[in-house]
Amino acid sequence: MATYKAIIAYDGTGFEGFQRLGPHRRTVQGVFEDGLRALGWQGTSILAAGRTDAGVHARGQVVSFELEWRHETGSLVLALNAHLPPDVGVREVEVVEEGFHPRFSARWRRYRYTVLPTPMRDPLAERSAWRVWPSPDLAQMQLAAGHLVGEHDFGAFGAAPIPGGHTGREMRLARWDLDRQTQVFEIEGNAFLHHMVRRLVALMVQIGHGREQAASMAELLERPERRWTGKPAPAHGLCLEAVIYDADFAGR
Amino acid sequence: MATYKAIIAYDGTGFEGFQRLGPHRRTVQGVFEDGLRALGWQGTSILAAGRTDAGVHARGQVVSFELEWRHETGSLVLALNAHLPPDVGVREVEVVEEGFHPRFSARWRRYRYTVLPTPMRDPLAERSAWRVWPSPDLAQMQLAAGHLVGEHDFGAFGAAPIPGGHTGREMRLARWDLDRQTQVFEIEGNAFLHHMVRRLVALMVQIGHGREQAASMAELLERPERRWTGKPAPAHGLCLEAVIYDADFAGR
Repeated sequence: MATYKAIIAYDGTGFEGFQRLGPHRRTVQGVFEDGLRALGWQGTSILAAGRTDAGVHARGQVVSFELEWRHETGSLVLALNAHLPPDVGVREVEVVEEGFHPRFSARWRRYRYTVLPTPMRDPLAERSAWRVWPSPDLAQMQLAAGHLVGEHDFGAFGAAPIPGGHTGREMRLARWDLDRQTQVFEIEGNAFLHHMVRRLVALMVQIGHGREQAASMAELLERPERRWTGKPAPAHGLCLEAVIYDADFAGR
Repeated sequence: MATYKAIIAYDGTGFEGFQRLGPHRRTVQGVFEDGLRALGWQGTSILAAGRTDAGVHARGQVVSFELEWRHETGSLVLALNAHLPPDVGVREVEVVEEGFHPRFSARWRRYRYTVLPTPMRDPLAERSAWRVWPSPDLAQMQLAAGHLVGEHDFGAFGAAPIPGGHTGREMRLARWDLDRQTQVFEIEGNAFLHHMVRRLVALMVQIGHGREQAASMAELLERPERRWTGKPAPAHGLCLEAVIYDADFAGR
């Protein structure tokens, strides 16, 4: 029996989020555990770096589980993929120290949010992008994003995971880029409040439309008690890109 | 009553191809005609630039239809999109001369084929890309693609649309490019034989893997009677990007 860490990717469209909900609800965790059971897994629950919401995608979600597997890890990737539906895939598997926990051992998490600035429907692209029109001003959004890097109280953008918990988080990257016809926001931080990235994106798009000032981002970070009450950007534009661990947990 | 030209986009995954097949078969044409009927259309069939196969996507398919519409064309786009499912969208509508035919009036067609060179499953990307591993050599594929530009007999790569019909076609662009983690083949020609692009891509990937010489492309163009019998590349990597018309049919 060893502890395995797996990097998994999924198209969130067909799932009611990551976390297992019950026998007739299609979730990433449920589908993944079914795949593991086909390989003889008898655990009760896998662990995961983060519970993505319904519709959110992932290219770098990290899960862990204990398994008796007598072959190479490469063959475990193939065996697992053979028992997973086309909208979930295992990208890598490695053996890790017993103490590894995909959530608590994580040092950084990187999310990517994709905006598609076009007036007309674009079915393929809209699966993983928020279609917005008119096109938001990228320079204004970048100006607002610049305030995010560093340690801040993000209480204006989400509640603490437990009542009374703190809402301070550290971001080490927050950047808008053009990628072909899309505007892409990448943010990397030690942890995120629930809906935080989607609220930040929604505010920045308002800033890009000139309906809010870029400075309002700085104000909300300085006075977190003034909750931002706008609607979060849609889930389907968001993707969990990567979870980064200290070298201690780089596998052996 | 006027003749309308519409540019439409679709995610081909959920369709049994473009062409209407019958009451219980989900096709792009069937879904689009249902949408038109909701706006009072009483025609029997729309016309289209090309009948894409099951699984093939489009960002620039062109269709035409006659319709009595008393408002602006902009409102027709919105009204049609409101009656189409999320995997089909109208991008543009314009009024055209009565003699306009999306297929016969077309001067050039541009296709894009996306290869995703990665060993592991990538659910979001694989919806519209062919996953190939090991990574094919882009320079070798480009060398082969260079032979395609100009007028050639493509009989080695597909049959004529009617028995005894000719298989000469003119290409004015055939190029491989890197686009982030994908290898993208773009080809623009006056017309294409059935499965021609997918066969060309399959051969070039073999060339990129060193299993065929780049020169074999030139040989097959010179001796089209020596049919290329390999398996076409999968449909889901292909996208009809654009159909280009002479200025006469640029709309009025």
